[in-house]
Amino acid sequence: MKFSIKRTAFVNSLNIVSRAISSKTTIPILTGLKIVATKDGLILTGSNADISIETRIKASNADNKLAIASTGSIVLPARFFSSIVKKLPQDTMTLDVTDNFQTRITSGSSSFDINGLDPTNYPHLPEIDSDDSITLSGDIFKEIIQQTVIAVSDQESRPILNGVHFVLSDNQLVAVATDSHRLSQRKVKIDDSDKSFDFIIPGDSLVELSRMIKEHQDIQMRISENQVLFTLDETSFYSRLLEGNYPDTSRLIPTTSSTTLQFEAPVLLSAIERASLLSHESRNNVVKFTLKPSQKIATISGNSPDVGKVEENLQPDSMDGEDLTISYNPDYMKDALRSFGKTMINISFTSPLRPFTLVPTEEKENFVQLITPVRTF
Amino acid sequence: MKFSIKRTAFVNSLNIVSRAISSKTTIPILTGLKIVATKDGLILTGSNADISIETRIKASNADNKLAIASTGSIVLPARFFSSIVKKLPQDTMTLDVTDNFQTRITSGSSSFDINGLDPTNYPHLPEIDSDDSITLSGDIFKEIIQQTVIAVSDQESRPILNGVHFVLSDNQLVAVATDSHRLSQRKVKIDDSDKSFDFIIPGDSLVELSRMIKEHQDIQMRISENQVLFTLDETSFYSRLLEGNYPDTSRLIPTTSSTTLQFEAPVLLSAIERASLLSHESRNNVVKFTLKPSQKIATISGNSPDVGKVEENLQPDSMDGEDLTISYNPDYMKDALRSFGKTMINISFTSPLRPFTLVPTEEKENFVQLITPVRTF
Repeated sequence: MKFSIKRTAFVNSLNIVSRAISSKTTIPILTGLKIVATKDGLILTGSNADISIETRIKASNADNKLAIASTGSIVLPARFFSSIVKKLPQDTMTLDVTDNFQTRITSGSSSFDINGLDPTNYPHLPEIDSDDSITLSGDIFKEIIQQTVIAVSDQESRPILNGVHFVLSDNQLVAVATDSHRLSQRKVKIDDSDKSFDFIIPGDSLVELSRMIKEHQDIQMRISENQVLFTLDETSFYSRLLEGNYPDTSRLIPTTSSTTLQFEAPVLLSAIERASLLSHESRNNVVKFTLKPSQKIATISGNSPDVGKVEENLQPDSMDGEDLTISYNPDYMKDALRSFGKTMINISFTSPLRPFTLVPTEEKENFVQLITPVRTF
Repeated sequence: MKFSIKRTAFVNSLNIVSRAISSKTTIPILTGLKIVATKDGLILTGSNADISIETRIKASNADNKLAIASTGSIVLPARFFSSIVKKLPQDTMTLDVTDNFQTRITSGSSSFDINGLDPTNYPHLPEIDSDDSITLSGDIFKEIIQQTVIAVSDQESRPILNGVHFVLSDNQLVAVATDSHRLSQRKVKIDDSDKSFDFIIPGDSLVELSRMIKEHQDIQMRISENQVLFTLDETSFYSRLLEGNYPDTSRLIPTTSSTTLQFEAPVLLSAIERASLLSHESRNNVVKFTLKPSQKIATISGNSPDVGKVEENLQPDSMDGEDLTISYNPDYMKDALRSFGKTMINISFTSPLRPFTLVPTEEKENFVQLITPVRTF
């Protein structure tokens, strides 16, 4: 196997598959990057226990300046190999595999010989039998990920909660995540789809996927029994699915409310950020809303005998309903508020110990953040 | 004590004194920031075992929008207080110390009450009796620090080597640092000074000082028996001096050479960076020069049986003298080369086991980096 290539094009593809490669894995060959050269171009692969990424560099694309002198394959130590490629002196580089998986990398007057690994020992990528492919807008799917993944549990006690639950039916995709303290649910219309799916993707996989989605890029999704495959142009992203039944979350979201507040999300976020400076110094990370719609008083406060206290008068755009005092974890509130960007939101409370919801004032059916308050008495 | 102030001006001064404040100190009051309000303005102080920083905010400077309502002093938890000030909602803020060192910070509708500490327990700053002050160009002193501090030892076995040795005599300031594997020496002319000093400043203090020096800023230096005081406009920077005798380094620098190389520093730096990628993966972090001036051959190479090998033909601007093969720690070489910026340098070797030197081709008497090679046979 021997080829030469434009170094920046190669680095771009190395960076993509490197997302799946961990130096901490217990399976030595998975610290490697697999390179296959065919007469059509290169295929690079990286993998870990959860995700695998494969990307192609086409010889037919003149920008890649890819010249395949001989075909073949090799596995190279990913981190070390990437750092070499990034530091090479010239715009082009040559990679040449000789005996015993020895690989020579040359560029200008610089020459590296590194020890490769036998590519036949590299695990095969999952096979996705399904021909059913769903096309999604990358922009919207990225938004869905960013809005829901904040509520994914990072505890190992209930593994099923480490994923986002997707249900596709009736031309609608519902994504929901909860760590049992908070919940995020987003709905989008999927045009022209009579398919039904129910699957759970690990939150970590989704975060990596979202980082790969470029603006205005369409993505194709295919589901098998225990794997999902996303195709983004020249790149295939595989993730395992979580097995088991996701809890029924539909009844957790309250449908009535006794007190409501309306805010520009960033305005409330700034106030919460200030209040959390104090709560973070205290043992119980809690801040309190005191809402008195009749007197047009809304305050946020925190108190920690060791450190001090904070109080701020809030100026909601509107406030209605009954008087209420409610305490909550400000970090959950910050995550939730950030997920709304700059939109106007409604916050609806029922009682001091019942979960409250945040929804955008427009299209309120399609997005909800739910937070369970903290009992402080 | 009560004052109001423009928040950005206050934050600038907080950032300056915060450099001296560590949250890891075993003396609780030193995690605090001392604020003194006089009718002339504010004095902020931060301190740790090695350095103390005091900075003034003048009421006479209208840009500060400083209004002192009542004078006094307080010590506030530095990290927590700074994070509050930085997050406050309005351009101005008010600080008001009430009973029991309780301090109220207000800005717009936001109000924090935090627990302060008794300022009478805050340690006094060192007293510098000396009236002898030396004025230095901040730009040049910053350069001296950056060029020498790389060779300061980070080992605790010989504390005297944790500092930079300064000798002022005959209108010349000589700065030297060595960790016994490498040495850096810089000389500058000090005009109009008949003074003589010999002192050692901890490398860590110098790094903090260098970060505070603004472009084209003059600094005044005053020395006492065990302290040095640098004055930078409104800021006083105190550092303890290291006690003891610095080793005589003057005879370590070779005066003859048998092989010389000339390079643009950045060109050689790139080649060393590539070679060190491989040496860092191996147990002995060593790269090798093979120099054959008669054949115009100069190569850099590294070899690690576990990982691979690297070789690169170097193109020095000139090369003279005897053939030589010499091995060294590439990290020392990288630090040394970076200290020259973009200048042309001469590298002079005497033998494979004797230290070699790097000097700029211009003003070569004023700056030298010395590196001890590694025995590999």
